[in-house]
Amino acid sequence: MKRIISIVAAMSVCIALSAQEHIFDPRNLVSPEVHSDASVTFRLYAPDASEVFLTGDITAGRDLPMKRGEDAVWTVTVGPLESELYFYWFKVDGRKILDPSNSYVLRDVKTNMSWFIVPGDGNGKGDLYSAQNVGHGTVSKVWYNSESMGCDRRLTVYTPAGYETSRRKYPVLYLLHGMGGDEEAWPTLGRATYIFDNLIAKGLAEPMIVVMSNGNLLHRSAPGESGEGLWQPYGCGSFDGSFEESFPEIVKFVDRRYRTVAKPSSRAVAGLSMGGLHTYMISLNYPEMFGNYGIFSGAVGSWWSRTGGVNSNGFYQDQPAKIARLAAASPDVYYIAIGKDDFLYGENVELRGMLDAAGMEYTYVESAGGHIWANWRAYLSEFIQMIFK
Amino acid sequence: MKRIISIVAAMSVCIALSAQEHIFDPRNLVSPEVHSDASVTFRLYAPDASEVFLTGDITAGRDLPMKRGEDAVWTVTVGPLESELYFYWFKVDGRKILDPSNSYVLRDVKTNMSWFIVPGDGNGKGDLYSAQNVGHGTVSKVWYNSESMGCDRRLTVYTPAGYETSRRKYPVLYLLHGMGGDEEAWPTLGRATYIFDNLIAKGLAEPMIVVMSNGNLLHRSAPGESGEGLWQPYGCGSFDGSFEESFPEIVKFVDRRYRTVAKPSSRAVAGLSMGGLHTYMISLNYPEMFGNYGIFSGAVGSWWSRTGGVNSNGFYQDQPAKIARLAAASPDVYYIAIGKDDFLYGENVELRGMLDAAGMEYTYVESAGGHIWANWRAYLSEFIQMIFK
Repeated sequence: MKRIISIVAAMSVCIALSAQEHIFDPRNLVSPEVHSDASVTFRLYAPDASEVFLTGDITAGRDLPMKRGEDAVWTVTVGPLESELYFYWFKVDGRKILDPSNSYVLRDVKTNMSWFIVPGDGNGKGDLYSAQNVGHGTVSKVWYNSESMGCDRRLTVYTPAGYETSRRKYPVLYLLHGMGGDEEAWPTLGRATYIFDNLIAKGLAEPMIVVMSNGNLLHRSAPGESGEGLWQPYGCGSFDGSFEESFPEIVKFVDRRYRTVAKPSSRAVAGLSMGGLHTYMISLNYPEMFGNYGIFSGAVGSWWSRTGGVNSNGFYQDQPAKIARLAAASPDVYYIAIGKDDFLYGENVELRGMLDAAGMEYTYVESAGGHIWANWRAYLSEFIQMIFK
Repeated sequence: MKRIISIVAAMSVCIALSAQEHIFDPRNLVSPEVHSDASVTFRLYAPDASEVFLTGDITAGRDLPMKRGEDAVWTVTVGPLESELYFYWFKVDGRKILDPSNSYVLRDVKTNMSWFIVPGDGNGKGDLYSAQNVGHGTVSKVWYNSESMGCDRRLTVYTPAGYETSRRKYPVLYLLHGMGGDEEAWPTLGRATYIFDNLIAKGLAEPMIVVMSNGNLLHRSAPGESGEGLWQPYGCGSFDGSFEESFPEIVKFVDRRYRTVAKPSSRAVAGLSMGGLHTYMISLNYPEMFGNYGIFSGAVGSWWSRTGGVNSNGFYQDQPAKIARLAAASPDVYYIAIGKDDFLYGENVELRGMLDAAGMEYTYVESAGGHIWANWRAYLSEFIQMIFK
C-alpha cells in the first residue's frame, strides 16, 4: 500500500475558526422580516449600544430610531413598502454596520450594503428583480483581448435560456456601468440577469445576448479578478473617449464568439451615468454600428464631453455635425431617461436641446428620484421591452 | 418629434442615497495594509468605542486588542504572516463587524467575513489563490434539469483558458462543497478558479473542465439565485444518498453540453466535508464512472453513512463489499486528506482502516489545522496536480 506523507505545509498560524460557527447562528434573529402586508421589521442584538438607528434608501437617508427590547434586541418596523429592492445599514452609536443576521450583501463601488427585496403581486418591481421559477439564462465571466489597450479585459455575458440548445442567432445588448463601477455592477446592483430572465419568460422582451463590459480603462476587471491584485475600487473612470473608441473590438469579439445577428437593428447599447456618456458618444461616432440606444441618467454634458477630454482623436468633438449624421441614420430606439432629482438633470436638458435642434427623434422618460440604482433598474426594464421588436 | 411620458412609476419612497457616497470615501483609511515584510496593519475609526479587538483566523480566533490613536483610529499590526488568504472581523464593544474600509467580503454559509491575501514570492499560497497575469478560464453559472428531483438546478462551470478557441476535448473534475455550502462555495471561499488558472498556466495541472454542483437537495441553488426567493442559508445538507445517487444525471448533462473526454480515467470527483462523504459514496456505488477521487476532511464515518441514512435504496449500505469492488476497479488516484485537529479525524482513521482491510490503494495526506478552508484550498491545489496525468 502506498502512503505519501503530506506535502501540505503546516500553516504558520493555528487556525481556530470553526466551520460550525458559520453554519449555526447562535442567536437566530430574523432580520429583515418582510411581513405579508409588505411592512418590514429589522432586528439587531446590541446589549451595550446606547442608540441604534436604521438608515438607507428605505428611510430616505434619514436615521430612523430603533427601540431596545428587554432581550437587548433593538427593533423597528417600516412600511408597508412598495415592491422593490432596498439597501440599508444599522447605525450603532454613530457607526454604520451591516445587518449581521442578513446574508445578503451588495457592493456599490467600495461600499458594502445589506439589502432585501419586498415581493409584490407577481408584477411588482421586487418580483421583476427576483429570480423566479422561469428558465434562467447562463451568466458567464469571459475574457477578451483588447488590442487597443494591449491586455485581456473581463466581461459579464448573459445568454438567454435555451441558447445552448437552440441553433438560432440572437440580438445583442451592450450594457454599460457608471463611474466607479465595473462588469459586476449590472448583474449585482442592477439585478439585470433576473430582469432579462423574467421579461423574456413573459414574452415582454425578445431573447437577447447581453454583454456587460468594464468601461474603466484604469483596470482590466472588477477588483481582485485580474492580475492587478487586490485593490480598492474608486470613482475614476474613462472620460476621454478612449473606451468608446475601442468599443468595436468588443462587438467584433462578441460576433465571433456568440451566435449573434450581426446588424445594426439587432444591436443595442445602453448605459448609466458615465455609461450614458459612453452610449451617447458611441451613437455619435458609430451610428452605423447600432440601431438602438439607451442613455440612463447620462453624464452627457460634462466638461469632458464639451472639451473633448484628453483623447486627441476628437472623439468628443464636432457634436452638432455628428448628431446630424446620427439623425440621418434614424435609429430604431433612442431612449433618454433621467430622474427629476438627478444632479445630471441639467445636462440632459441640454442634450435634448441639441437633439431637438437636429430634428432627432428620441424617447424621453422622466422619473421621480435621483441618481440611483432603483431608477436604473426601472429604465433598463422599460428599455429592453422597446428594442429588437 | 415623438415624446413619451414616463411609465416608470414614481417611487413610494424618496430615495436620498447619493451614488457619490459609494464612490468617495470621506475618511480614506487603508485597512488592511499589507506591508512589504508581510506584516499587516488594520485600522478602524471608532471615536465612541471603549474597546476594539481584531479577531479571525489571523489571530487563531483570539481577540487581539487594537490601540486607540489621537485621531480616534484604532490600529493593530500582526505578522509577518505566511502568504495565504485570511478572514477577519473587528469586535467593537463586544460586537463583531466587518472592516468598513475593506471592500472584500466573503460569505461562509450565512456569515459574512472581511478578507485579504498576503502575497508571496510568486509561489506562495496567497499567489496561488490570487488572479495572476495568466490566461483566465471562463466561469459560468449554468442550469441543468434534474429528472430525479423534478426541477432545474444550478452549477458553476469553469472552462480553462482556450476552451472556446480550441477543438480539443477536456477531462472533467466534479468539485463538491460541504454542509451548508452551495455551488458558490468553491469559487469564492475556495478561490478554485484562480487555483486552476494558475496551476494550468504553470503546466502543473492539466487543462480541465471543473463542475461545481449544488449538493444541498433542499435547494436548487445558492441563496437568492433560484425561484425559491431570498432565503437564509443554513447547515442542512444531503446525507441520505439521494444526491450521490442522482449524480450520473449531472455527468450526462456535462458530457452533452461540453467537449469532454467521456471516460473514467478523464473524470474526477472530489469534495470537502459533506462533499467528501458524497465523493466516497460515489466511489463505492459508481466505481466504473470515475477514475480519480478526492476526499477532503470527509464526513465519511458519520451515522448517516453507517446506518444508510433515510434513502431506502441502500446507497450507503454494504460498504465492505462495495470497497472490494472499488479496489478491483483500481482508480488512478484515490486521495484522502485531513487536518490533525479536524473533528472528523477519527472517521477518516476508520475509513482508512476499511480501505486497508480491502487492500485498496490510496494517497493519504495529513496536514496541520482543522476543518477549515485554508486546508481545503491546499488539498485541492495538491489533488489537481495528481490527476489526469
